[in-house]
Parts: sequence; C-alpha cells; structure tokens
Amino acid sequence: MDGILQLPRGFRFGGAACGLKRSGAPDLALVVADATASAAAAFTSNRVQAAPVVVSAEHVRRSGGRMRAIIVNSGNANCCTGAKGLAAARTMAQAMADEIGCRREEVFVCSTGVIGRQLKVEKITAAVPGFLTALESGPEAFASLSRGILTTDTRPKTASAAVRIGRHTAKIAGCTKGAGMIAPQFLKPHATMLAFLLTDAAISPALLRRALGQVIGPTFNSITVDGDTSTNDTVAVFASGASGARIGNARGAGFKSFVRALERVCRSLALQIVADGEGARHVVEIDVHGAPDDRGAAAVARTIAHSPLVKTALAGADPNWGRILAAAGRAGVEFNPEKAAITLAGVPVFRRGRPLPFDERTAHAAMGQQEYTMHVDLGAGRGRARMWTCELSEGYVRINADYRT
Amino acid sequence: MDGILQLPRGFRFGGAACGLKRSGAPDLALVVADATASAAAAFTSNRVQAAPVVVSAEHVRRSGGRMRAIIVNSGNANCCTGAKGLAAARTMAQAMADEIGCRREEVFVCSTGVIGRQLKVEKITAAVPGFLTALESGPEAFASLSRGILTTDTRPKTASAAVRIGRHTAKIAGCTKGAGMIAPQFLKPHATMLAFLLTDAAISPALLRRALGQVIGPTFNSITVDGDTSTNDTVAVFASGASGARIGNARGAGFKSFVRALERVCRSLALQIVADGEGARHVVEIDVHGAPDDRGAAAVARTIAHSPLVKTALAGADPNWGRILAAAGRAGVEFNPEKAAITLAGVPVFRRGRPLPFDERTAHAAMGQQEYTMHVDLGAGRGRARMWTCELSEGYVRINADYRT
Repeated sequence: MDGILQLPRGFRFGGAACGLKRSGAPDLALVVADATASAAAAFTSNRVQAAPVVVSAEHVRRSGGRMRAIIVNSGNANCCTGAKGLAAARTMAQAMADEIGCRREEVFVCSTGVIGRQLKVEKITAAVPGFLTALESGPEAFASLSRGILTTDTRPKTASAAVRIGRHTAKIAGCTKGAGMIAPQFLKPHATMLAFLLTDAAISPALLRRALGQVIGPTFNSITVDGDTSTNDTVAVFASGASGARIGNARGAGFKSFVRALERVCRSLALQIVADGEGARHVVEIDVHGAPDDRGAAAVARTIAHSPLVKTALAGADPNWGRILAAAGRAGVEFNPEKAAITLAGVPVFRRGRPLPFDERTAHAAMGQQEYTMHVDLGAGRGRARMWTCELSEGYVRINADYRT
Repeated sequence: MDGILQLPRGFRFGGAACGLKRSGAPDLALVVADATASAAAAFTSNRVQAAPVVVSAEHVRRSGGRMRAIIVNSGNANCCTGAKGLAAARTMAQAMADEIGCRREEVFVCSTGVIGRQLKVEKITAAVPGFLTALESGPEAFASLSRGILTTDTRPKTASAAVRIGRHTAKIAGCTKGAGMIAPQFLKPHATMLAFLLTDAAISPALLRRALGQVIGPTFNSITVDGDTSTNDTVAVFASGASGARIGNARGAGFKSFVRALERVCRSLALQIVADGEGARHVVEIDVHGAPDDRGAAAVARTIAHSPLVKTALAGADPNWGRILAAAGRAGVEFNPEKAAITLAGVPVFRRGRPLPFDERTAHAAMGQQEYTMHVDLGAGRGRARMWTCELSEGYVRINADYRT
C-alpha cells in the first residue's frame, strides 16, 4: 500500500528491548502524544480477558477518551495472572504517567505473548525513562514502534493514508501485529492481534469511537488465520488534532472522508496480518453474494474461511469446489445448490448445481497466485459479505505443535 | 471393544469390488434382510445433500420404515450430479429390488467418495446379481461388508453388543467409515461418515427411530475430526426381529437395555472414526463440566474440539492450557476464568484463574497416550457435555492438500 509512510504530527514513538524476550528482540513500544489526544479502542470479545485489556478499557472510560500515551510489551500476554497481573498492568501505565506528567488513566496499556506467566514489570519500569527520551516522530521511529509489538510475526506491518478535510490534510498511520490465534471478534467498540492507529485529525473521542466502530467490521473483523480469538486482541486509535483538519460532526463530508481513509489503512493492516499468517503463502478473498441477507452471507463466508478442508485445498492450490460447497451448506443459511455458482481465482468451476468443465492445470496455476478471490454466488438473494483468509499448511501445524515444547 | 463380533440373525451381507475405484479395492457393500425389517435412519443436516441422501430419506418415508436391503458404493459420492445423479441412486435401489423381489422404496441406498462426478451406475447394476448370491451371515462376510464402504480410512471399523431382553438375547452389530470431513450434525432423525447397524431385536420402526434419536447425540454427534459436515453423512439401523427379543414400548426395561447397548455400539464406532482420523494418533475426550447448562457445556466442548490451536497443541503433546482457556472463552458461554479449572490427561494445569505448577515432562508424556481425557471445569453451574476429537497434524494437511492434484 505504502511506499512512503504518511506520518501524523503531534506524536513521538519508538520501540526497544527491555529484556522480556530472551532473544534480545524488541519487546517494548511507546507512543506519546504532545498534548491530550482523543482516543477510542476496541477489545476482544473473549470471556477470558488479559489484565491490560481490563485496565485499558477502564482507562478509556475514566479518561473520557482523552489520553496521552500508549505502552505495549511483547513476549508476555499478562493473561491469567490474577490480581498480580492487574497490578502489573497498572504499574506499566503509572510508570509512563509519572515520566510524562499525566494521570494513570490517560495511558493505554497492551501486552502480547505467552499466557499464564507473571510479567516481570520491573524490567519495563526500569526501561521506560530512558526510552521516553529516545522517542522521535520520523519514519525510523515508526518502524521501530512497529517492531516492538511483534511476537511470531515474520515482519512488521504498517500502513498510512492522507485525507483532505477542508483546507487541511490529516494523516493516518497504523501498525499491527498478529499471525496466529487470529479471528478477532470485536462485538462492541471495545483483539493477540494488536493495531495502533495514529492520526492528526482534530476529532472528538465520541466521533473517533464512531469512526472506529464503522471500519472494524469490514476490516479486522473480516479476517481469519485460524479461527481462534485471542484474550488480548486490541485496536486503539489516537487523534492529536495537530493537522488542524477539524471533523465537527458525523454528517459532514470530512467525517466520511476520514472514515474511508481509516478503513483503507485498517484493511491494509488486516490483509498484512493474513499474508503473514502462520505458514501462509496466499491471501484469499472470499466474496459471498446472492445470500438471503448480509448476515447470511457473512455466516457462509466465515464457515468457508474456517473450514480445514477448504484451507488445506488452498494450501495445495486444489480447485476442490466440492469442499467449498459443503462448507457453505453447513453454515445454517437457506440456499438451493441448484442455483449456486463458484468461481476460483477467475476460473468458473461450478454453476447451477453442476461442476463446469475446466482445465485443472489452469485453475491450479491461478490458485498459485499470492492473492486471489473466490466468488461464491448462492443465488438466493442480495446479501453480500467478504472475508479474507489464508491456507492451512504443514507450516502452520509445525509452528503451533512445537510452540512451547 | 470387541474380540468376537456378536452378529444378529436374519441378515446376509458382504462387500466386493465392482470397478468404481481404479485401485480395484472393494467399493460395493450389500445387506439383505431375510424378511421385511424395521428401519430408521439419520441424515446430514448440510444444505447440500447428495442424491442417495435424498432418495433414501424418501424411501424410509414411503416404506413406513419397513425395508429389505441396503446398497452402498464407495469411490463416488453421487453429489452435485443433478437429475442424472438422482436417477442413478434410484437405479441402484431398483437393481436390488428386482433381484430380491421387493419394492424400490424398501431399499436403502448410500454413496461416499468424490463429489461432482457422475456415478457409473452400470458398473453397480452389472455386479449386483452376482454379489447377491455370494452374501453370507458370518464374521467374514461382516468384515467384507465393513471394507466395502471405506474411502480414506486406514482400517475397517466394527463393533457389536448382545443385550438380554426378557428370555431372549438380541445382538447388535455395526460398521462405519469416515476419516475426514467429520463433524456430523444430525439435527433431526434424518452423516461422509456412514454407519450401518443391524440387530435381530423385534422392534417397530417408530421405536427404532426413537432409539436411534436417543443415541446419536452422545455418540456420532459428539465426535469431530475437522469440523466439516459432509453432504452424505448417514446412519441407518435395521432390525430383523429374528432373535425373538420383543421390545413392545419405550417405557419398559427392554427398550432401555436396547438403547444402552445401541449407544455402546455407536460410541465404539464413533471413537474408531476419531482414532482413524486423517493424520491422527490420539483420541482426546473433552469433558466439560460446571457450565451454566448442558447446551453451554456442549458449545464450549465443541469450540475446544474444533480449535486449530488446541488441536496442534494436542499434536505436539503440549500442555498448552492457555489455548484451551482461550477457546472456551470465545464459545459465547458465561463463566468466570477465576473459577475455572483444567486437567490434562490426569495432570492439573490450571485452577481458579491461575496456572498450577506442574512438571512439563510428566504432562507431555501423559499427553503421548493414545487415549486420554481433558477435563474443563467452568465453575459456573451443573451443565456437562463430552466431545471426542483428534489432533491436527502435518499428516492431516498432507492428506488433504494433495487429495486431487
């Protein structure tokens, strides 16, 4: 998407190693707004929520979405760590607040990594003062931020956009992480995928929350690597206002432009997660149309996207439309296979209840592309939904069967 | 379970090769009752149903559950084959009916194998007369029947039981197939897992349907290999009455004994499917208790049983309770992790929101067993459910990524 990152004004950021990861890889990432920023966030819908999820939700609420900083550690999820874990998350926030000179609830806190081990928070608090002085506002610092949040990812993921609002131009830049345990379900504006979005638009916390609420469905909530929803999933967006581009209400052209730009950044980040899915080489768009309604289309798209038989066929670049149709058939949605059609990477393979004659080698080659679309037409209405998924490969199994042992 | 098969009287059976499989492996299986038998069946809940599913459902209904024979081919699913496929299924039944001297609707028909290719039904009809004369009623014939229905299975699967009813003893013998695309969902008494159960109890079609309805939930509906529900899943039970063991009503001790025995046979067959799951070496019982209700327990058990992260951990014999807890947390069931507990193959690993100190090597070794139980206590009520699953291994991916190409 990028090339040159469009970086918003009003923030300093960076990442570094504080010793949580034995490898010595970066495991701490910080963002500080020059002045109070508008903040909105969405959190995992998992019943099991990590300590930093609990604490950050509390901080967004108490601060009224007016916040100053973000602190993220990787290497330890601070989940299933009880009262001690909650205290550790608060200690991280407090350490930032003390140095910056703000209240604890103005600090957003995130963790990602192994579940069930106590966080060595003293390593973080010892490192914060020094790191804060090293924060900068340029592309290298943003790249450093994007590396500090990684765990099993093979590469950092960033995206940005510029959006004209009135006479001003606002920038939106984001970074994300996540490769396994990906099927975010942000049921309420409230993901171990993490995504941080920074903008210099001038927008109230309420409007920012509304904008985030509109873009999460068709972006982060429409991707899956393995169908597992993490205990730590979090998306946060901070708006500094430093561009002077003011978004006054939800009805104006400015808000719509901002939402479109935010959605573009979020989709790019979301697809980068799928592309970096554990053991993944393909990003497949599943475009379901002709469903009785959008909800039905989403159910079919999700069932296909999660089917191990479909995902192993994607791994083999195998035009096995029978598995796709069988997955669609168990999604609980009414349709008549005699009216359905399937096109794989541009090759029509099934129409009106019957397989079409197609050249296996052509289809196999088309499914070798890094990105392609699977069209599924149920022939039962006007409902439509898209999901993005990757294959289920031997690599995925290897990575996850050997994770701890 | 077995040792010696307890074979019911009143049936002849067998399997053979009719040339549908290029390998020359057995691909046809027949059962003929000496006289009209009571019959009940359960079919897949997939919206996409194979031709033989449509035809057999129609035959059970039209015959009032009074049937004479079963014909099964493997190697071709006769699914997505349109009007020609329906005609082929009817032709299979008619060929049997003509030879036996019964009506077409007294014949139960099943297919399993590749989807979307027209069945060469003339190979079947040409073979039926000769095969019918070769049917027998002994253990070798039953073994032959159990081999005729196989596709990707590595071995035949049979189970049987004897049940005392009054002064008589009824026998129940069953065989089944299925290794991938396993997550049967028989929502109504109406599975490509196939199971055929033969008994010489004397029981009406209505009572037999009721008995089958009671045992399917805790057996075939409680197993999963990959979460994919086939277009051809079918369970059929035939009762010849030849033992003289009469089951007059649903309230008597006889019916209860019969249901218990039928459940025992079905569970053994179901667990053999899991044990023979594609790429599987372990059968893991997931015993969820302490849920708000049984339905909630089933939702949690099913979510754990289908989680790729849990199933890859099982492949690695990795006591990764964090993945189990995270899967439970996204099942949509209310519980407090602070009250939850997890025991893996006898090793307590998590209790009251906190990991327990345990010896990794001991747990790893315990999870190396061929069969073990995972206990998940949600601490939120009295609901309980059990599911049986296998690991997600590199072998599974290899088998399914290379299936057709």
